[in-house]
Amino acid sequence: MVKAAVMPAPDVPIQVREFPIPALEEGAILLRTIYSEVCGTDVHLHHGRLAGVPFPLIPGHVNVGEIVDLKGKPVDLNGTPLRKGQVVTFLDVHETCGHCWFCTVAKASTRCPHRRVYGITYSATEGLLGGWAEMIYLKPGVKVLPLPDEVPPERFIGAGCGLPTAVHAIERAEISLGDTVVVQGSGPVGLTAAILAQLSGATEVIVIGGPTVRLEEARRIGADQVINIEEVSPEGRVERVLEATAGRGADVTIEASGNPKAVNEGFRMTRDAGRYVIVGQYTDVGDIRMNPHLDINKKHLDVRGSWGSDFSHFWRGLRVLAKHGERFRWEHFISRRYSLQEANEAIDDVEHYRTVKALIDPNLCSREKHG
Amino acid sequence: MVKAAVMPAPDVPIQVREFPIPALEEGAILLRTIYSEVCGTDVHLHHGRLAGVPFPLIPGHVNVGEIVDLKGKPVDLNGTPLRKGQVVTFLDVHETCGHCWFCTVAKASTRCPHRRVYGITYSATEGLLGGWAEMIYLKPGVKVLPLPDEVPPERFIGAGCGLPTAVHAIERAEISLGDTVVVQGSGPVGLTAAILAQLSGATEVIVIGGPTVRLEEARRIGADQVINIEEVSPEGRVERVLEATAGRGADVTIEASGNPKAVNEGFRMTRDAGRYVIVGQYTDVGDIRMNPHLDINKKHLDVRGSWGSDFSHFWRGLRVLAKHGERFRWEHFISRRYSLQEANEAIDDVEHYRTVKALIDPNLCSREKHG
Amino acid sequence: MVKAAVMPAPDVPIQVREFPIPALEEGAILLRTIYSEVCGTDVHLHHGRLAGVPFPLIPGHVNVGEIVDLKGKPVDLNGTPLRKGQVVTFLDVHETCGHCWFCTVAKASTRCPHRRVYGITYSATEGLLGGWAEMIYLKPGVKVLPLPDEVPPERFIGAGCGLPTAVHAIERAEISLGDTVVVQGSGPVGLTAAILAQLSGATEVIVIGGPTVRLEEARRIGADQVINIEEVSPEGRVERVLEATAGRGADVTIEASGNPKAVNEGFRMTRDAGRYVIVGQYTDVGDIRMNPHLDINKKHLDVRGSWGSDFSHFWRGLRVLAKHGERFRWEHFISRRYSLQEANEAIDDVEHYRTVKALIDPNLCSREKHG
Amino acid sequence: MVKAAVMPAPDVPIQVREFPIPALEEGAILLRTIYSEVCGTDVHLHHGRLAGVPFPLIPGHVNVGEIVDLKGKPVDLNGTPLRKGQVVTFLDVHETCGHCWFCTVAKASTRCPHRRVYGITYSATEGLLGGWAEMIYLKPGVKVLPLPDEVPPERFIGAGCGLPTAVHAIERAEISLGDTVVVQGSGPVGLTAAILAQLSGATEVIVIGGPTVRLEEARRIGADQVINIEEVSPEGRVERVLEATAGRGADVTIEASGNPKAVNEGFRMTRDAGRYVIVGQYTDVGDIRMNPHLDINKKHLDVRGSWGSDFSHFWRGLRVLAKHGERFRWEHFISRRYSLQEANEAIDDVEHYRTVKALIDPNLCSREKHG
Repeated sequence: MVKAAVMPAPDVPIQVREFPIPALEEGAILLRTIYSEVCGTDVHLHHGRLAGVPFPLIPGHVNVGEIVDLKGKPVDLNGTPLRKGQVVTFLDVHETCGHCWFCTVAKASTRCPHRRVYGITYSATEGLLGGWAEMIYLKPGVKVLPLPDEVPPERFIGAGCGLPTAVHAIERAEISLGDTVVVQGSGPVGLTAAILAQLSGATEVIVIGGPTVRLEEARRIGADQVINIEEVSPEGRVERVLEATAGRGADVTIEASGNPKAVNEGFRMTRDAGRYVIVGQYTDVGDIRMNPHLDINKKHLDVRGSWGSDFSHFWRGLRVLAKHGERFRWEHFISRRYSLQEANEAIDDVEHYRTVKALIDPNLCSREKHG
Repeated sequence: MVKAAVMPAPDVPIQVREFPIPALEEGAILLRTIYSEVCGTDVHLHHGRLAGVPFPLIPGHVNVGEIVDLKGKPVDLNGTPLRKGQVVTFLDVHETCGHCWFCTVAKASTRCPHRRVYGITYSATEGLLGGWAEMIYLKPGVKVLPLPDEVPPERFIGAGCGLPTAVHAIERAEISLGDTVVVQGSGPVGLTAAILAQLSGATEVIVIGGPTVRLEEARRIGADQVINIEEVSPEGRVERVLEATAGRGADVTIEASGNPKAVNEGFRMTRDAGRYVIVGQYTDVGDIRMNPHLDINKKHLDVRGSWGSDFSHFWRGLRVLAKHGERFRWEHFISRRYSLQEANEAIDDVEHYRTVKALIDPNLCSREKHG
Repeated sequence: MVKAAVMPAPDVPIQVREFPIPALEEGAILLRTIYSEVCGTDVHLHHGRLAGVPFPLIPGHVNVGEIVDLKGKPVDLNGTPLRKGQVVTFLDVHETCGHCWFCTVAKASTRCPHRRVYGITYSATEGLLGGWAEMIYLKPGVKVLPLPDEVPPERFIGAGCGLPTAVHAIERAEISLGDTVVVQGSGPVGLTAAILAQLSGATEVIVIGGPTVRLEEARRIGADQVINIEEVSPEGRVERVLEATAGRGADVTIEASGNPKAVNEGFRMTRDAGRYVIVGQYTDVGDIRMNPHLDINKKHLDVRGSWGSDFSHFWRGLRVLAKHGERFRWEHFISRRYSLQEANEAIDDVEHYRTVKALIDPNLCSREKHG
Repeated sequence: MVKAAVMPAPDVPIQVREFPIPALEEGAILLRTIYSEVCGTDVHLHHGRLAGVPFPLIPGHVNVGEIVDLKGKPVDLNGTPLRKGQVVTFLDVHETCGHCWFCTVAKASTRCPHRRVYGITYSATEGLLGGWAEMIYLKPGVKVLPLPDEVPPERFIGAGCGLPTAVHAIERAEISLGDTVVVQGSGPVGLTAAILAQLSGATEVIVIGGPTVRLEEARRIGADQVINIEEVSPEGRVERVLEATAGRGADVTIEASGNPKAVNEGFRMTRDAGRYVIVGQYTDVGDIRMNPHLDINKKHLDVRGSWGSDFSHFWRGLRVLAKHGERFRWEHFISRRYSLQEANEAIDDVEHYRTVKALIDPNLCSREKHG
């Protein structure tokens, strides 16, 4: 039997349940889970803030595991057959259809209505389709990538789904050499965006966020300036950015805060004819007031939403991890590891900003047992 | 002496005053005005809604005239010397500096803080620097283009400053062959944007606006669908666009309405991963509420402000006029011609939507005289 | 039984053979062919110039037909079930994998190594997988589009595969309003590129080609200038373009000639900092000499290859046909209709430029029979 | 009197001549030269390979100096008045007109026909308009930037004109996170392009060049792989790149070699749908053979010439120097410093690849004098 942490319904405590070891379809793969990520999305799931989630659910959309079984000839991106014993990860987004208008004409596959996501839109009744479990069932066609030798599993999970999300946001940002980039938010997406901005040519990166534990990480990964929202008022933050940019504002601002009010600051912090990428407004937490003349038209501003990520962002993120892992050591974002039995604590700690990044290790025995 | 219509101060009636014929600097040109445009901007000027306007002012930023004098060797774009008797137009924007950060690094010259604009930011005390006058003084370095033979002066003024403004907006819109384009607003910018969308590959153009006189023009210039805001509710307009696009929304929406609430509709009318160009919010007429999650982030939307226009838009607009003038006959936008003495009526008619486009003809005797 | 024209091997005459009516897999569709295109590619196929073609082959990659049978619930792009009696077309390119590096990371699906093409890379031993046949078998997953009511089948075939090919080339060309565009070549791709350039903002389109029958079509569809390569030398052609552009050269040149020497002219005809799209070099017909300093570096030129087309180009092309069919009447490109028995004549006429566009009508009895 | 090194005519030895200290026009600045660069262009100048050079000439287009005099109120980019004693550099390109078609419509100012260049297109008879002199006369309107405190003058000259040239090339290259970039050429442009590729998101950079002294620099600045053209055949170089890229070729190749044959290799080393930037073909050193089908069309390749640089590249380059100077220490490129009297030796050493970068120090006494 396979243990998994299951969210039975919104706002109901997570329970560890047992599932049978699944039989494999042609082309399917069975992973022994090494680590699974705990992400802000899991907090949203827990509170039922995402529409259309088929409870009960095994959370965990970014995962790393070892292949313990496979059927048929599943291959990696280069067509090389996968084999037992390999440590791999996989793209959580599955069944992007490749046939609908958004996939084919708009070429905006993150808006494909048919996509399913491991750990988010699959039900526990459909199988081991989330990573908070001892094993994960990879359906035929799931996009699998062997973890490069240079990337320890904990580094990969430290980056987590913030990495492809930030790769996508940075792609939308079109940073030029010498740009000043402001990142609003110091969670996993914001911190990785601050790293990737440096790797994309920005010569000045300003991170605005909190609390202190996260801002220390921002400094560690190379932010040139860090502004603590608990200490500096919205007005003061705008002034600090203007001071740093000869009064003009940032060339690029990346919103990764989740707070709608950040958008008002972002409009003001970004220079005329700059780019403002909004990636952190993952759920609806309310309206803001804005002024179309001052905020957009007269500024000649580009405002760009960035939704989800596709396989290219996942692949590019992994390349960055393999190259720059020692420099940025994403594993430092991991504040604590949780057993399956501690999943409720993990959710609680993430929700209350007690961690930068949390990780589920299904091989870890719970503290209750061993305490 | 030269007669000119002068705005003495905000909300004070325009007066016809006389000015001496100016002496020419080296490189300067004197035009006998053929026509000058009356534009929505002139209404804003009249009510003092634009900051930093140096009253008293001779309005009229888009103009066509005949060269009656010149000093030195001013040349056209191809380096050909200009000569007396030529019918020319010129770029109202002058003194874009070419040295500041916005001109050189950002390459966003419409945000150059040094630019001056004929008919808007020059005072009548500085000379004949607006078109509502029998003569216009072109300072050295003003960018002059001979009016192509194919373009009658009234057609050029019928297009007016809406033409370069719309060329810029369309450039920002990046229309692809087969796109559906919605234009919000049926004034001169909106109507010309609807024309240019057709010329840029859109196969379906929907114009939303009013009143009827303008919507008839929208139909005449080829809009596939016209929606009257006096007859269809905001909710109904959104539904009409969704119906026309298999429920997805327009690929591109161009806001040219001047009404901030149009922006809320625009967010909803535009498809996921589409482009929304905001060009009509020329002055600050208030805030709106918006939802960063639904309106931008989840939609993966591009929102692009488009401010002013530069010489490339002016030049490209003139190419379009020369090629497609007979097809779209912009002179039909002109509802009435006004003498200098009738300038107050012109402003009033434009303000109250009694015209699509009004024109000042300084050679026209006033009705009072001849009535 | 179903009659089909089969190419048995390179340079062997085409034969009409009979095939059994196929049984349908789940998701498959059977079409009664209305028309199939004869394209320059078919001449290349006949002479064995394309690598990896699995003879014997039923040619015909762009087709229109009526659904006479289907199994399961195949749907169109909007998810609407297809039904018997509908007149449809389909994307000849099939099995673009959606999983390889080119599909997912490079987002360059026309370079996917797994794609198969109806009428080109499927063998007659695999089924009725080309359009020169009374019936066509559409495998599950083939992308089907109902022909819009506004598009008569002969108009669709008159445009043929030149339409999506030209849509792709025009996308690569990034034409701006007011641009001057040169098209090298007056075959189906060139003529449609000349149409689409007009629809994409070009105000001057120059077509260079021959023979006379094609240049008459170029004039008919609105080319501003037509240069006959049989009358004007390469040097003279370059001069004509420079004369038309104040000595600068075209903003955009589109090579659609198939002659490698055209590329040398193209470099010289295109202005500094312009764009040169190469779409006509579909097969290897030899090297040219070029000068990297003069032709590319000093010119600050963009040279862009354009290979094949994807579904977006097909869909956009159909939108253009539906909107602008009456204006450009692509069916005029069709010089003659051929029965299946006349397929060898069709190939010969296309090869020797006796037609602009040829069409196979499997319902047409051969002249031999009825002459 | 002011000493300057003068090229009297092509292939005539450089002479040190004396000039009077110039009187300043309004807005002009006089610099005491700290250092001037010796660049490959100076070798071309010496041999008369550039058209339209007005001999006699004071070479030296990239320079750093101290303001010793100024007249009027010349300002820096932010409008701050410049003052005596400041250490500054300036953009060698001057009089980009801002009025011609290339400046205004094409927005391709490096193709402006009116631009003049310090050290290249100004004659010694016009004044101290090149940097191989004890003083440099900055005409009104020359774009001056104070050297940031973080940038020692020798670091700035070590980067030299290769820096803005490479910034421009990298801008054209549009590198994405995770890309593999090949740089052909290990001179100053190539080495800086290899640095900037790393700073722009490339995770693998391969430098192809020679001789050993330059390849050691390539390794020092972080190239992942270095290929010595003296050891590896053209065929072998292509194979090495394919091996490093799963057989696909580089995402981006930047030609910075000056050898036209490199272009043939570049076509083959770059992946389908990749980008090939040609920046090193600064003079005409002959033709190559190429195959439009294989090299461009079937590859769906983008080939982009990159000519010169504008102020944005200069400004961005300086930002990069200020931020990443300690990491890349461009001053290491400087193999030797030369006095004015040693200018002929400097040219000879650069021509024969005895240096990576050479520098003229007008304050250095010649070895003859002090040896």
